Amino acid sequence: MLKKEDYQQHISAKFNTELESLRNHMLSMGGKVEQQLITALDAVMKMDSGEAELIVRRDSEVNQMEMAIDDECATIIARRQPTASDLRLVIAIIKVNRDLERIGDEAAKVAKQAVRMSEDGRSPSNFIEIKHIGAMVGAMLRQSLDAFARLDVDQAVEVVKGDDKVDKEYGSAMRSLITFMVEDPRNIGVILNEMWALRSLERIGDHACNIAEHVIYLVRGLDVRHGGLDELTGASGELPR
Amino acid sequence: MLKKEDYQQHISAKFNTELESLRNHMLSMGGKVEQQLITALDAVMKMDSGEAELIVRRDSEVNQMEMAIDDECATIIARRQPTASDLRLVIAIIKVNRDLERIGDEAAKVAKQAVRMSEDGRSPSNFIEIKHIGAMVGAMLRQSLDAFARLDVDQAVEVVKGDDKVDKEYGSAMRSLITFMVEDPRNIGVILNEMWALRSLERIGDHACNIAEHVIYLVRGLDVRHGGLDELTGASGELPR
Repeated sequence: MLKKEDYQQHISAKFNTELESLRNHMLSMGGKVEQQLITALDAVMKMDSGEAELIVRRDSEVNQMEMAIDDECATIIARRQPTASDLRLVIAIIKVNRDLERIGDEAAKVAKQAVRMSEDGRSPSNFIEIKHIGAMVGAMLRQSLDAFARLDVDQAVEVVKGDDKVDKEYGSAMRSLITFMVEDPRNIGVILNEMWALRSLERIGDHACNIAEHVIYLVRGLDVRHGGLDELTGASGELPR
Repeated sequence: MLKKEDYQQHISAKFNTELESLRNHMLSMGGKVEQQLITALDAVMKMDSGEAELIVRRDSEVNQMEMAIDDECATIIARRQPTASDLRLVIAIIKVNRDLERIGDEAAKVAKQAVRMSEDGRSPSNFIEIKHIGAMVGAMLRQSLDAFARLDVDQAVEVVKGDDKVDKEYGSAMRSLITFMVEDPRNIGVILNEMWALRSLERIGDHACNIAEHVIYLVRGLDVRHGGLDELTGASGELPR
């Protein structure tokens, strides 16, 4: 006969499996949008409009994944009524899910710009700013997903700090692109394409940063979304345990 | 003596009060970001850097509201373990909350551009595109909040449809601003400010649209986030009841 403890064990094991599966779905969506970003950057560098159009089409798969994960979250809350840290995890996944969908959107926007770039011709900047900032935000995204997978606060803090660097690089890229425009107004069209693509990359950095902030909140219960990072790293730069 | 039904009534009445209070907090946050947007547009038109800086500072109040509402949602889920439509409402508020915070962010970005505009001088366009598109997205935001307050699907559908108009206006504004740049490269700096502000306004339209989509989902259980609107309005343009 099944004892009450066994039964609860059973429920709890099933619940754990469900949570684990939800977490895996979210991480595989993360992998998918990361691939979308990498391919979009590749399409820009190669000025390959065919590859770029593929990314735009594939964005609907990302959207489907977002809705499926949302449904999964709602079902788990309704059926399992999780509390404390389990509930925090599900709510974090609802939010990270949104950030990932947005990253997918921005990657598709970069791809759309790549299509225009392949029509308008190469920028005098050789898209070097896109390559550089694209690599930065790509690394941030990968790191933020790793941090989520391993609930690694140190790595999450690195991502949040990295966002300041992206903002600085973005500002200096804008200034140098404006110089190209002023030097030769025939560059205006092509440089604008590049600026919009950079704007999307900068947003991807913001979203990676959001994901990292959710990891910190999950592990430490500390909300660092709006400038609480100093509190976390303290004066010495050490993390309080 | 308190009967069991009375007790449940009591619990349920208290729960209703909590849900109602959560809903009100969300709507008052909506009112706050709407005011931020209106003031930011006013600061642009008057080229008033003092007013613009006030908006940037006030964005931290919006951020505080976001975190408080998130906490309120988590507490309600943990304590009341809502199911079905109550749970759907709480999850919708978690998401709308995020959209509102983003709208506040974008309004602050418009205000930051207003500070730059007050330094760089008036655009040859006289900021007419900002005034026009700003009024459009302001109306969308107000409508989406009204639709949420009254759970009015028809109004929510209007908002979603309005977003296409904003995208078209945005595209034509960009083209006319590029003309100003090409005509006189000395305009490049000031026109770029205007373009970034327009980009933020266009994003605000997107977020208002998200809010409206959550209303449709709440009332009809139909997810129209990724192109499901045709299904909702049907071939005849009539809403299925």
